[in-house]
Amino acid sequence: MHCEVIAIGSELLLGQHVDTNSAWIGEQLALAGIDSYFQTRVGDNLERIVTTLRIALERNEAVITCGGLGPTQDDLTRVAIARLMNVPLVRNEAAVEHIRQRFRIRNRPMPDSNLQQADVPQGASLIPEMPGTAPGLICPVGDKVLYAVPGVPWEMREMVGATVLPDLQRRAGLTATIRSRVLRTWGQPESGLAEMLAERIQTLDAIGNPTLAFLASGIEGIKIRITAKAADEARAQAMLAEEEARVRGILGELVFAADEQGMEDTVIQMLAERGWTLAVAESISGGLVTARLSAAPMAGPILRGGIACQAPELNAQLLGASAQDIQDPAALASAMARGVSRLMGATVGLATADAPVAQQDAAKGTVFMGLAIDGVAQSQAIHLPGKRDQIRQFAVISLLNWLRLRLLERR
Amino acid sequence: MHCEVIAIGSELLLGQHVDTNSAWIGEQLALAGIDSYFQTRVGDNLERIVTTLRIALERNEAVITCGGLGPTQDDLTRVAIARLMNVPLVRNEAAVEHIRQRFRIRNRPMPDSNLQQADVPQGASLIPEMPGTAPGLICPVGDKVLYAVPGVPWEMREMVGATVLPDLQRRAGLTATIRSRVLRTWGQPESGLAEMLAERIQTLDAIGNPTLAFLASGIEGIKIRITAKAADEARAQAMLAEEEARVRGILGELVFAADEQGMEDTVIQMLAERGWTLAVAESISGGLVTARLSAAPMAGPILRGGIACQAPELNAQLLGASAQDIQDPAALASAMARGVSRLMGATVGLATADAPVAQQDAAKGTVFMGLAIDGVAQSQAIHLPGKRDQIRQFAVISLLNWLRLRLLERR
Repeated sequence: MHCEVIAIGSELLLGQHVDTNSAWIGEQLALAGIDSYFQTRVGDNLERIVTTLRIALERNEAVITCGGLGPTQDDLTRVAIARLMNVPLVRNEAAVEHIRQRFRIRNRPMPDSNLQQADVPQGASLIPEMPGTAPGLICPVGDKVLYAVPGVPWEMREMVGATVLPDLQRRAGLTATIRSRVLRTWGQPESGLAEMLAERIQTLDAIGNPTLAFLASGIEGIKIRITAKAADEARAQAMLAEEEARVRGILGELVFAADEQGMEDTVIQMLAERGWTLAVAESISGGLVTARLSAAPMAGPILRGGIACQAPELNAQLLGASAQDIQDPAALASAMARGVSRLMGATVGLATADAPVAQQDAAKGTVFMGLAIDGVAQSQAIHLPGKRDQIRQFAVISLLNWLRLRLLERR
Repeated sequence: MHCEVIAIGSELLLGQHVDTNSAWIGEQLALAGIDSYFQTRVGDNLERIVTTLRIALERNEAVITCGGLGPTQDDLTRVAIARLMNVPLVRNEAAVEHIRQRFRIRNRPMPDSNLQQADVPQGASLIPEMPGTAPGLICPVGDKVLYAVPGVPWEMREMVGATVLPDLQRRAGLTATIRSRVLRTWGQPESGLAEMLAERIQTLDAIGNPTLAFLASGIEGIKIRITAKAADEARAQAMLAEEEARVRGILGELVFAADEQGMEDTVIQMLAERGWTLAVAESISGGLVTARLSAAPMAGPILRGGIACQAPELNAQLLGASAQDIQDPAALASAMARGVSRLMGATVGLATADAPVAQQDAAKGTVFMGLAIDGVAQSQAIHLPGKRDQIRQFAVISLLNWLRLRLLERR
């Protein structure tokens, strides 16, 4: 089974929107075991949409179109599919009722143009999920199939996840359940991880299931995706759990979280387990560490707060750094970490500091991290690549990871 | 002249990378006056790349491929183009020398495989810019042309900007200079701006040059792009300047910046003109305002610092908010703004506060902003849509915009 993804909309060609839908669908198809060899983007032009659909259906058994299902003149996907299928558009009463109801719920008058969304190529059926006002379509074309879903990402995702993928798998005779889990690592480049996992990857390559794949994710580290195929959900989950344990055994503390959990969530959770609280003092990172920690859903009782003194003398006035500390960034980082934990009444203090202004050119990319636990402070210098914004971002995750490793040591 | 953009790489189909290159090239083509009706993505498979190139060259006079020029087995673009042109690959000595030199500069040994990058389809010429180790190619195919550029964004951008676009314009007989400027607005939805500009847009539609286009940019507001076409640079710039003045005249203080300048840069600049300094106290935004301001290149002497008290009692201890203030978020926002300007010795204090924990469900989406100038504080409640992360982001730009408007009033 081969499936092409077609994104429809002139705004995509003009670069006004980046097409993230195709990337998401591509990933889901790969995880579902469906091959996808081409993706195409085409503008809001009837003839060109029909041509694109025709080429795609010649070289694939299935096609997913994304976008062009709205109520305006520019929304041509329904008309193009009807032309391709050589059938008329017929008004679907179930869709009409659904659209009317959406407007009723929001207490808004419905423009007549919205009913065009209920015009469906004869022979097509509706995708049961309809989270917005645009119905999704399943259109048989000979012995092939074309799915049309809206371009609004959350509407698209619901329809693809609940109906399109299961239907594709059924047509492909794929009865297996495919599940994946992502392990998130920090501290080794991809080549380092590949070396550590080389033997295991070789074994898995021979077996073919489960599989491991690396995903480089910039300032979020390197992700490792484990994908398992099994006869049912329980067996797929058991395979994932077994492989996860094995990979964690090899990589040890390089793994900081799984799936959607971020470094900040991990750190907050570890502090919560100890009943500890946290405060942050930021120089070069200027509020980024605090902003990231405060975004974590569980941060409430743990994060006391953060302070970012951009004027250097404030580190002395508010955090108790000495005049000597201010000339020595390693000492300053320790003093800031100690000072902020005292100021805000936290068990743990974290800090980022950079070199004094006069030395900043020479020290470019060097960030000093400070960490105080129960008033005992230490500091560490790290060298980070890139421009200022990237250095700031790397400093954030490096600091959080350092705290994570220190907490692991003290377990 | 029609030009199709083809992005090559299996990682794009698998959703491991979002294809931002095609969006960028699409935008540049539109700005250069070149029509682009299709974009295609194809994986690292020789036969499918050749097919994709063939289809693209049938329906366009020009094609740009992006990616697949590296030194590994997976990099098949050169081979595919040679097959399409029906010519052999020949080693290009200028490219060999360039690649050797890149490695020499970095003082790294060169793997032999890297020389494959110097194998060029016979008849193709090199794109003069070569910022990385992958040479870009200009390949004549009959009376049509195919450009191959690397997938690394900054290498691609340099080659497309300096060579591909001018060459395309020359082939298309476009001698006009096309320039654009973006005005950034905050405070009106797209429909509101369209209404204000309706008459002007109608006039411009009749003339056809310059043009106005709206670009919705989420938490960065709505951008308005002015594009002007003229015989030379000076005349294009004069048209832009004239149209910019006209649009600013209509939209007034809704326009907060132009081109790459952000809201934070505008606010810092306005404060610098007055010789004023700034400090920030954050509750719901938890460090985001400070992080954004501290990213501005000119923030150094202006931004004294920021404090984010997540534990409510710290607002009393550190910022002098009263017990009564802490129960009333409007009063709290004023007290925080006043308190932080005093604590950090700044002319202006900014603050974000949210409702006390017990009231937060009822007040969901309500953020209280505080602003103190020379110790005189005021507050304002705003209602923001979305989930917590989006509310936090909207709060940041709303607060900065409020300061901007207050500074304008006091001019």
